[in-house]
Amino acid sequence: MTQVGFVGLGTMGSGVVRRLLDAGHDVTGWNRTRAKAEPLLAAGMAWADSPRAVAEASDIVFTMVTNTQALHAVTGGDDGILAGLADGKVYVDMSTVSPAASRALAEEVAARGARMLDAPVSGSVITLEKGKLSIMVGGDADVVQRVAPVLRAIGPVVTHVGGNGQAVLMKIAVNLNLAVQMLGFSEGVLLAEKGGIERKTAVDVMLRSVIASPMVEYRGPFVLEQPDEAWFDCSMMQKDLQLALELARSEAVPMPTTAATNEMLTAARGMGLGHHDFAVMFQALARMAGADADVRGGSDA
Amino acid sequence: MTQVGFVGLGTMGSGVVRRLLDAGHDVTGWNRTRAKAEPLLAAGMAWADSPRAVAEASDIVFTMVTNTQALHAVTGGDDGILAGLADGKVYVDMSTVSPAASRALAEEVAARGARMLDAPVSGSVITLEKGKLSIMVGGDADVVQRVAPVLRAIGPVVTHVGGNGQAVLMKIAVNLNLAVQMLGFSEGVLLAEKGGIERKTAVDVMLRSVIASPMVEYRGPFVLEQPDEAWFDCSMMQKDLQLALELARSEAVPMPTTAATNEMLTAARGMGLGHHDFAVMFQALARMAGADADVRGGSDA
Amino acid sequence: MTQVGFVGLGTMGSGVVRRLLDAGHDVTGWNRTRAKAEPLLAAGMAWADSPRAVAEASDIVFTMVTNTQALHAVTGGDDGILAGLADGKVYVDMSTVSPAASRALAEEVAARGARMLDAPVSGSVITLEKGKLSIMVGGDADVVQRVAPVLRAIGPVVTHVGGNGQAVLMKIAVNLNLAVQMLGFSEGVLLAEKGGIERKTAVDVMLRSVIASPMVEYRGPFVLEQPDEAWFDCSMMQKDLQLALELARSEAVPMPTTAATNEMLTAARGMGLGHHDFAVMFQALARMAGADADVRGGSDA
Amino acid sequence: MTQVGFVGLGTMGSGVVRRLLDAGHDVTGWNRTRAKAEPLLAAGMAWADSPRAVAEASDIVFTMVTNTQALHAVTGGDDGILAGLADGKVYVDMSTVSPAASRALAEEVAARGARMLDAPVSGSVITLEKGKLSIMVGGDADVVQRVAPVLRAIGPVVTHVGGNGQAVLMKIAVNLNLAVQMLGFSEGVLLAEKGGIERKTAVDVMLRSVIASPMVEYRGPFVLEQPDEAWFDCSMMQKDLQLALELARSEAVPMPTTAATNEMLTAARGMGLGHHDFAVMFQALARMAGADADVRGGSDA
Repeated sequence: MTQVGFVGLGTMGSGVVRRLLDAGHDVTGWNRTRAKAEPLLAAGMAWADSPRAVAEASDIVFTMVTNTQALHAVTGGDDGILAGLADGKVYVDMSTVSPAASRALAEEVAARGARMLDAPVSGSVITLEKGKLSIMVGGDADVVQRVAPVLRAIGPVVTHVGGNGQAVLMKIAVNLNLAVQMLGFSEGVLLAEKGGIERKTAVDVMLRSVIASPMVEYRGPFVLEQPDEAWFDCSMMQKDLQLALELARSEAVPMPTTAATNEMLTAARGMGLGHHDFAVMFQALARMAGADADVRGGSDA
Repeated sequence: MTQVGFVGLGTMGSGVVRRLLDAGHDVTGWNRTRAKAEPLLAAGMAWADSPRAVAEASDIVFTMVTNTQALHAVTGGDDGILAGLADGKVYVDMSTVSPAASRALAEEVAARGARMLDAPVSGSVITLEKGKLSIMVGGDADVVQRVAPVLRAIGPVVTHVGGNGQAVLMKIAVNLNLAVQMLGFSEGVLLAEKGGIERKTAVDVMLRSVIASPMVEYRGPFVLEQPDEAWFDCSMMQKDLQLALELARSEAVPMPTTAATNEMLTAARGMGLGHHDFAVMFQALARMAGADADVRGGSDA
Repeated sequence: MTQVGFVGLGTMGSGVVRRLLDAGHDVTGWNRTRAKAEPLLAAGMAWADSPRAVAEASDIVFTMVTNTQALHAVTGGDDGILAGLADGKVYVDMSTVSPAASRALAEEVAARGARMLDAPVSGSVITLEKGKLSIMVGGDADVVQRVAPVLRAIGPVVTHVGGNGQAVLMKIAVNLNLAVQMLGFSEGVLLAEKGGIERKTAVDVMLRSVIASPMVEYRGPFVLEQPDEAWFDCSMMQKDLQLALELARSEAVPMPTTAATNEMLTAARGMGLGHHDFAVMFQALARMAGADADVRGGSDA
Repeated sequence: MTQVGFVGLGTMGSGVVRRLLDAGHDVTGWNRTRAKAEPLLAAGMAWADSPRAVAEASDIVFTMVTNTQALHAVTGGDDGILAGLADGKVYVDMSTVSPAASRALAEEVAARGARMLDAPVSGSVITLEKGKLSIMVGGDADVVQRVAPVLRAIGPVVTHVGGNGQAVLMKIAVNLNLAVQMLGFSEGVLLAEKGGIERKTAVDVMLRSVIASPMVEYRGPFVLEQPDEAWFDCSMMQKDLQLALELARSEAVPMPTTAATNEMLTAARGMGLGHHDFAVMFQALARMAGADADVRGGSDA
């Protein structure tokens, strides 16, 4: 099998590695805090002492980190992935960063004789575990073809959307809809509730209606009971919206609903709810409406 | 079988009658222009000369008309439904009107010894034909129970959401999401396209992602090719948003995405696109972005 | 002097009557609660027992009431102004109602041989008392010319903007800017304050800058200390925005800042601040930002 | 007199230098393209061959450039202002950059024994020429006191708003209101016009109303006839809004009207109107409303 490397073992990254191991791949991993890697080491993953060492040990090396700054931290410098790349290797970044940052990195990778793809994912850990993750890929077709079998071990739907940086662009374009749909849903549920319908009934009807996207199905019930741990908190969602709004400004695309939703995420953060899953916009809106905003659960809501 | 009456034989109303006939019900119908009734008459529906006559001939009489004004036209006056109601009859309105108008009508119905339900539907003709329509019902439980078998002939999912007027409230709360989701989708597709991704690829990826609600699945492809006939045009959608915004103001529910979307529907109408399906917001947005807004099809786009 | 009648003696109406009396006019007045008329009666105003009696006693009769419903209450019926109008009389409505309602009333007035003007004012009691009120007038030029001397006793700037109903349209178009400017001002002050600048300093700088309209000069300091009594509360301002948004929809004019501001007025009302002057939007925004929203004063803030 | 240096001789910078010369100050200047300096050289300004040389020749050195990048270009490197600063000198930046960039520069200046102030201006060339410019200053009080006489030669109102970086913050907080007020004004004028009032009449009434800030007075008439040259074009205005929105996000201040206005500036740019004065938002809105958007003048409108 292909030697696979993985840098960035957060909740989502760990889930990806587990699927790669389950598919029989040899995986070498690294994470800033080693503790998070323990369950995977127990499951057969090998440990390397630096991102560079991961790259040196692998044919295909993946990264999945929080933002552009973290990406530069694991790719640059003496211990970084770039230093460990060489002719014939492929580097696949699954992080959500700006398309420009992704393209710039692809050029540095090419300068070392290796090839790069951007391959962000759309969906949550649950989607991943169910084996239903959709993966968008940006880069050259021959590289996509070569890496496709490994990507399909992660999620069955692999779509080549264009050149380097265009998969992260597509991801950002999809993700703004998560927030917009969640806020529209919240407006509807709150309107129904203040008009006298039980909140649970309103959610149930919504989930059986034509607006019930998988996102609405997963997150809609969070307006009744928050998850113990945020899947994707307000700050992370706002990071994605911010990338979307910056791109939109530079491409001259007006984004009325995205901009309005971004301000509501700001309000949720201003109200001290920023660390909750972004579905907490419902609560922010309910407070503005003077409604009983009580939602069960959540780490400290 | 129960004697069923139906007033208002537009595209959706006709589809409902067809399902009632297919289920073996005797249906008596009336429409302002008789021509639209011909196919149904050929299929076995009986004709009555007025809404009142329909009510007199039926145990359960339905209406499905465009707005409050049209509803008053078929229910009031000497030839109206109210004049034909009597003890033991049930009147079911499937139109989308204001909850207050619906409640007021329910009181007039009760004054005649009959009972009323509001039963708006969520979904399009296609959802109806597939037998997947979701019906929300407002009114007293015993009446809902009595009418449920007939409603289930129309669509399998019948949800009793509350008292008179609350089903139209719920419908309005659902429907604002149609417009909000469509505009968010348009923002994302246009951002992807101006960033260099083929429009068709962007749509395909969206339809395979977690934001793909049935609404997005049906209407998303309209940004590539408009339907010959609008399913639900900008003016009709704006009528629903207007009901939502009026209720929201009276209940003190802020609606940032609904309000922003409403202004885009206004812009689409201002640009002369108002008679197209509301998915034409994509084109309005594309013009604002200076993008090639060309979308195939549509009656005169 | 011309015999003048006045119906509707709220704070603003009373101020107008006082200026008319000061200018030497004979004024006959009526108000739903007579108590409010006492100071004016002491100052020389005559009392009439109904709006009709006011009209019968006057050459020019004014109304200044809260909304369309109140306007119908004082103009219609046996005791209403219409019943007291006759050939040669002029009826001037200074209320802010919909242009359509104003035009409809003008037709009823004309049917009685009298003439009507709509003459809403822009500005507050303070502007009025300083003799700086700006009056917009809608109606026929000859009628405007005839009434102008009386209007100039109220405020020096009288502008004939068009036919019946167009002055209220113009008033609505001006007034939406009060709310929009106040919210933009609040966003700026709050941004400065959270960035470390004293709120008072921020207000002072704003008041000396190019954005300092008379409205900003009057209301800006309300973010430091609320007036004891609301000059124009959130509910009244939202009534005006609602008229603006309804007209805009019917004329197909997108109103992005008006719509966004309207939702913030809704939020202020939802937070229980609706009875305060609409400058309280600052406090609503501050709560959303998690800032110390404390503003001195106000009846119960 | 104090030896004054000035770097950045655009339209506004040149106007400032002219006032300094008129006040009797010795001024040494530098600009990237020398041609723009010729009129000032003819009026008595001395030329220096680099920003560094300007700093070396002056007690107080000013910069007024377009953005952070341009500021770094004239302050950094061997030929930059920092290299020419020394103990006892004061450096005053009048550009609009991010507060963080300004604070960082102040630290570099202090490391060379000199002192820095940020002193952005609010108002246009016309305000400047009329001697009515308002100057906000950020930095230490003793430095402000020392430089105040020179600043007052530029504009009479000098306000010390806080420490380093806080004057640019205040400037940004003021400037967002320029755009918001202009869009609110445009919505009102367009509503009046589509309702049948002459555009010129609508503008006249607005300019005599309580919403007539100096900004509205200067720019309102641009909806009738554009200036030959943009005072402040859409792209420059959007740069300021962008700074405002970034700060607001980091301080958790929701900015509903600023965000909505920013999207309209994007639309104006998307429609190819970006190089016009930002008052061109009126035209963008008029196109969206299907109105006759014709505005006379402008370089190529």
